[in-house]
Order: sequence, then C-alpha cells, then structure tokens
Amino acid sequence: MIERFAAGAAYIDGETVPVGEARIPITDLGFSRSDVTYDVVAVWGGAFFRLDDHLQRFERNCGRLRMTLPVDRDGMKAILHELVRRCGIRQSYVDVICTRGVSRTGSRDPRTFENRFYAYAIPYVWILRQDDPGAGMDAVIAKTVRRIPTDSVDPTVKNFHWGDLTRGQFEAYDRGGSHPVLLDYNGNVTEGSGYNVFAMVGDRLLTPESGTLEGITRRTVLELATAEGIKAEPATISEEAFRGASELFATSTAGGVMPITSLDGRPVGAGRPGPVTTLLRNRYWQAHEDPRYITPVDYDNTGDRRL
Amino acid sequence: MIERFAAGAAYIDGETVPVGEARIPITDLGFSRSDVTYDVVAVWGGAFFRLDDHLQRFERNCGRLRMTLPVDRDGMKAILHELVRRCGIRQSYVDVICTRGVSRTGSRDPRTFENRFYAYAIPYVWILRQDDPGAGMDAVIAKTVRRIPTDSVDPTVKNFHWGDLTRGQFEAYDRGGSHPVLLDYNGNVTEGSGYNVFAMVGDRLLTPESGTLEGITRRTVLELATAEGIKAEPATISEEAFRGASELFATSTAGGVMPITSLDGRPVGAGRPGPVTTLLRNRYWQAHEDPRYITPVDYDNTGDRRL
Repeated sequence: MIERFAAGAAYIDGETVPVGEARIPITDLGFSRSDVTYDVVAVWGGAFFRLDDHLQRFERNCGRLRMTLPVDRDGMKAILHELVRRCGIRQSYVDVICTRGVSRTGSRDPRTFENRFYAYAIPYVWILRQDDPGAGMDAVIAKTVRRIPTDSVDPTVKNFHWGDLTRGQFEAYDRGGSHPVLLDYNGNVTEGSGYNVFAMVGDRLLTPESGTLEGITRRTVLELATAEGIKAEPATISEEAFRGASELFATSTAGGVMPITSLDGRPVGAGRPGPVTTLLRNRYWQAHEDPRYITPVDYDNTGDRRL
Repeated sequence: MIERFAAGAAYIDGETVPVGEARIPITDLGFSRSDVTYDVVAVWGGAFFRLDDHLQRFERNCGRLRMTLPVDRDGMKAILHELVRRCGIRQSYVDVICTRGVSRTGSRDPRTFENRFYAYAIPYVWILRQDDPGAGMDAVIAKTVRRIPTDSVDPTVKNFHWGDLTRGQFEAYDRGGSHPVLLDYNGNVTEGSGYNVFAMVGDRLLTPESGTLEGITRRTVLELATAEGIKAEPATISEEAFRGASELFATSTAGGVMPITSLDGRPVGAGRPGPVTTLLRNRYWQAHEDPRYITPVDYDNTGDRRL
C-alpha cells in the first residue's frame, strides 16, 4: 500500500489516490481562470508545523475570494493526516487547494459554482538544498518584470498568479543566477518565486511590509528574531537598501531560512551565510520540536477522523 | 458515440474523451503556477473562423513563454477537426492550451519540464446571449481593482491570470451590473473579463492600444469597420473619453460584437445598440460566410489527419 503512495498521496473528489494519478477537471475555473487559493504546510520529523496557522490563513483567503470550503477545519485535518499516513514519510510538503470549481448550470457566473477542495502530500520540497550549510542562493533583482501590484491581485491571498515570478525565474537563469527577487512599481523589494526575503540593514532585520505574501515562515522568523533580541520588522525596503544589506536571506515553507550569498553576481557580505542568518536558520529548525508549534502526524490511524 | 460527446470532447494525453471526464494533473505547472497560454477558436455554421490566425497567435505565445508545443500546426488542426466531429455540433467554442507540464526529474526548474498540449470543443459560449438583438451589457468601470500591468504579465500572451478580472466581475454584480471594464494604473481603459472594448468617440471608433489582449475579434472588427469607411484604430482611451462615447461595445470569440447599453447604471447613447455597433455586429456574422476567413469542419472524417 505505502509503496504505491511513496511519491505522494492526493485527495481528489473524496478519494485518496497516488499523486501521479491525481487530476482535476480541465474546466475547473481554478485552472482556466486561476480562480483558486492554496496553502502549504510542512511535516517535519513526523509532525505538522503550525498547522492551525496555515489552515486559518487558508480559510480566511477562501473567504476573501468569496469561496465556500466544502470541508471544515477538522475535516481538513483528518484528510491531511490520512495523506501523510498513506505516504508513510516523516518530512512532507502538504498542499491544500480550494478552487472556484466547475459550473453546475452552464452559467459563467462564478457565484453559481460549487467550490472544490483538493489536497496532496509529497516528500518535502527544498527551494534551496541544504546538504551544504555554506550554500546559498545566487539571487538577481529582476530588471525585465515587476511584481503584480496589490490593487490587481492581492498577494496576501496565496495564489497561482506566477506569471511575473516565472518571468523573473527565467531572467535569473539567463543572467547566471538561481533565484529572482522582484521589485514593485515604486522600485521597492517585494518577494521571489515562492519565498519572502529578509535584509539585515544596519542593526535591523527587515522584510517587505507590502506587495508580498505574509508568509508563515516569515512570521516565524520575525518571532524568533525578536526572541533573540534582534530588531526585526516589516518595512519598505528600497532596491538600494537591499543592495547595501550586510545579510540577505529568503524564507519559505519549502526550505525554511535560505541564505542569499550573492546578488547580481556580487557577494552579499562575505559571500557566505552571515551570523544572523545562521542563528535564525538554527532556531527555525529547533522550533520544529517546540510543542507550541507542532502537531504529530497520526501515523497509526487511531484518531477520530471522519474519512 | 456522438451522444457521449454531446457536452463536448477533449484531447488529453493523446486520447479523445468526453469533456466532463477531461482532467489534467494537479501537479501540472499550468495549474499550480498558471504557467500556461491558450487560445479560443469559434466554429460557426460548421466552419472554423480564422483558424490559422488563432493557431499562429497561439504558437507565437508558446514561444514567448519559452514553451515547445508537442504538436505542430497540422497536428493541431487534425485534433480540432476530430474534436468538433466527435461532438457533432455546428456551433462550437474550441479551446487549445499549452502548459509548462509536469516535472520529469523532480526539479523545480521550468526549463526541464515537458510542455503539454490539451484541447477541447464544447457548444458555443455566449458572454452575452443574443436572442434579443436589443439586449446589451450593463457594464461598470471597476473601482476596486486595476488591470494587471503589462510589465508584470503580458496581456498579449493570452493567459489565465484572471484574478483582477474576477474581482472586477464580482464588483460588477455588487453594483447591479453584469460586466466589468478595468482601468490601468494611469486611469485608461483596458479590457473586461474575456472581452476587448470599443468606444465611438466623435467620429472615430477606438479600442485600447495597450494593456489588453490583441483579440482576433478585435482585429476583425477593426478590419470590417475600415472596410465600411469608419475611422477605426487602437488608441489610448481615458476613463472620461470612454464615459463620453456615443456607442460602446465589447468583442470576443465567445459572443462576437456585444453592445454595452449601460455604463455604471446610466444609458450609453439612447440605451440601446447604436448604429455603428449594429452595423459591425451584422458584418461580423456575415464574415463567418466569407471564404477568406473560414475553414469547413471535416465532419466526415475524410481528411488526411494523422491521429
């Protein structure tokens, strides 16, 4: 059983299937209008990290898009435990998705659609492999594309509108880098393709306050930094301030705290992960053993789960 | 056979299936990053309208996204004839889609993905029903959202980044309208949720020159208007000029030329389709019998089609 699900398990229309067989209707507006929100929770060492924080954000974002989740919080949790249990893995990337769905009447009116919930669990995804603790991202500040403004698409509602981020990703490769950082139309830093960014500017640790997803990893890092006595806060970060930072790093559920060791081909600081970055990366992974943050996966299938 | 396909037929991974069974992988980046382009061709009276123009634009847009279509022009045509033949319908909405696809290696690098081609044919879609030739759209100029700027997502590469358009659609409903028109960040008119717009300003027929899809219906209308001796051209259209227009209409493959008879609750002109709108709507449907524009569907399956 587990072997069939080794590459991952998905919940589609009430059934649990191997992720490679998981498919959604081509007519779901979640695809054909990218009318969808999602969230990603990590399982680390056999436990979900900040599960309720992720699901709370996800539920809020469904509401902002005027979607109605067809499953409640407990139901989602039961599904997620089941998916990870099926895979039998201790480190997992768990995706929850709500789409506008498929028309029931033939009408184009999105208010008449039945919204859908999908989910899948796959082995943990690393935006930056961390086998080598000295490794870092080779970031570039994108010149050919700007982040979609918040008055067009709200970035705090986690979404699949990645056209700008994908353009930035191609530009990064073209310029010999690995990861893009996008500016807004005022020339301030926003985020990259799947990660928030932080900059050590003077004695303050800053992260863009608008134009970005309010990431849970970002929030965790702000909390952990504050607990360490570091002045950490969201702020407007100009391109110039970002370029002058003594340390830079990115954050994401898919990789945690990831040092940015070069920017546009030039070393950041000494060209290796700096002391604040390293401290917070260590604290971040230590937090994955903190009972306040974790929910052990029910691998034995003994919970009261309504599947 | 036909009955199974009455609601539509889809081409998925080399097979033709009823559209209700057509599904794409949940891990296709076409969904999970909206990394996709598409095009829509109409079949009217048993013939494709401007088939090569649509496929040429589609191929160009795949190139702009650095995707490689796994099927060539003749192959696509063979597939589309087959889909419409299976449905057995004379009026059809035919969608061709190219997605980034699914990772072959587990890498996140979009350059390593195998791009996918999907297509489906369904009964013709009307953005505005035209049973009543006096009916029109009740448009609103969206106040709560702006069109995604071209330096973020290029609107001439037809895409599913509809977050702004969907927000506009909800706003239109909230304000008692039926269809939104979005402004850019300079306050100029762009387009709506699936349609270009035209405005009769003085003696000139104008359509926004940037910030919009360069629609094939838009192009057809510009050609037909010019042939009628009307000064028709793309231009910058301020909100004020749009509000002062004597006639307004929208264009789309899904509905043709659609009068806008009210704007923000006030009548446009006399509150019914104007003379230029009506003339061009008639010319548009007449063009569907023009041999220069049409390609009869091979309903008898006698063509040299490599399926």
